Amino acid sequence: MGGPELERLISLFAKLPGLGPRSARRIVLKLLRERETKLLPLADAIRAAAETVKTCSVCGNLDSCDPCTICASPSRDNAICVVETVADLWALERALIYRGRYHVLGGSLSALAGRGPEDIAIASLLMRLSADPPQEIILAMPATVDGAATGHYLAEKLKNFGIPISRLAQGVPMGGSLEVLDEGTLATALRARRVS
Amino acid sequence: MGGPELERLISLFAKLPGLGPRSARRIVLKLLRERETKLLPLADAIRAAAETVKTCSVCGNLDSCDPCTICASPSRDNAICVVETVADLWALERALIYRGRYHVLGGSLSALAGRGPEDIAIASLLMRLSADPPQEIILAMPATVDGAATGHYLAEKLKNFGIPISRLAQGVPMGGSLEVLDEGTLATALRARRVS
Repeated sequence: MGGPELERLISLFAKLPGLGPRSARRIVLKLLRERETKLLPLADAIRAAAETVKTCSVCGNLDSCDPCTICASPSRDNAICVVETVADLWALERALIYRGRYHVLGGSLSALAGRGPEDIAIASLLMRLSADPPQEIILAMPATVDGAATGHYLAEKLKNFGIPISRLAQGVPMGGSLEVLDEGTLATALRARRVS
Repeated sequence: MGGPELERLISLFAKLPGLGPRSARRIVLKLLRERETKLLPLADAIRAAAETVKTCSVCGNLDSCDPCTICASPSRDNAICVVETVADLWALERALIYRGRYHVLGGSLSALAGRGPEDIAIASLLMRLSADPPQEIILAMPATVDGAATGHYLAEKLKNFGIPISRLAQGVPMGGSLEVLDEGTLATALRARRVS
């Protein structure tokens, strides 16, 4: 329908995360209806991003410069927050509370997926810690089985550096009603209760 | 975050229908992680579509050729199905039941949006009907207030051509449970009930 170019564009959009054939068709029709203001700018932006955005050789973040803006900033605290993905790094930056640097592992250890320590950016983290030891390491792993395993493994690996290591607190999320929370989260929040 | 190119790309994706900042970030990260297999093919496909896909000068469909594949096909029935958008045309084609040609109005008449008969492709439809009268006209307008108004207007305009005019049936959609249907649809389905 609509010729091979149109079909190919729709099928590529349909394979993006969260999209399917229906939403892809809707997006492509919108793009073609607004060629000058939507389609061509998007084509240019994709081309520009493909040419300029690179992975930071220090921390694994994505940025137009290498080292990335965060690694290059002189005003950042001398702490390293270890995250699984660039998306997690961005989420922490949006929270506007942490002012240190990051290290993106690029994945979690996973027995099921066959991902071992050599498959994620652990060696480069150890090298960074030896070369320029931070004052603190925060392990900001996701609260999943693989995330917890990765956290445990890293805590074990890193303890000889003598740097304070901490992890994100687990508990009731902001706005979370107890009624709809899973038992695991409730149990964790109860165990980690604080004197008020 | 991530430099101007990345931010621009995310903001363009976030403005596409059905997407927002969150899904746009997810899509852009996926594209950048799979540069060779996702980002560059998408950039090429957008460029190719921008260069080749055009609006059919006969019916208003989108295709790589003009007249479009449907208008150019000798095996199509000599009927014209009038639709509001290219998306509606594609939806009818997917139903695999209609084998005639189309006419895309590019919108409905709308008092609220200030769209009159000269703002949608009615003049070109009348010219088509005079030049090459079809055996049947199907008004496949959406079942909205504007769609119904457009249907009425067209039926009035077209009746002097002496061509049989029909509209899509309204009623209970396939798989539709009566319990969740709105009263308007139920009333229409009841009024238009058929002897079985």
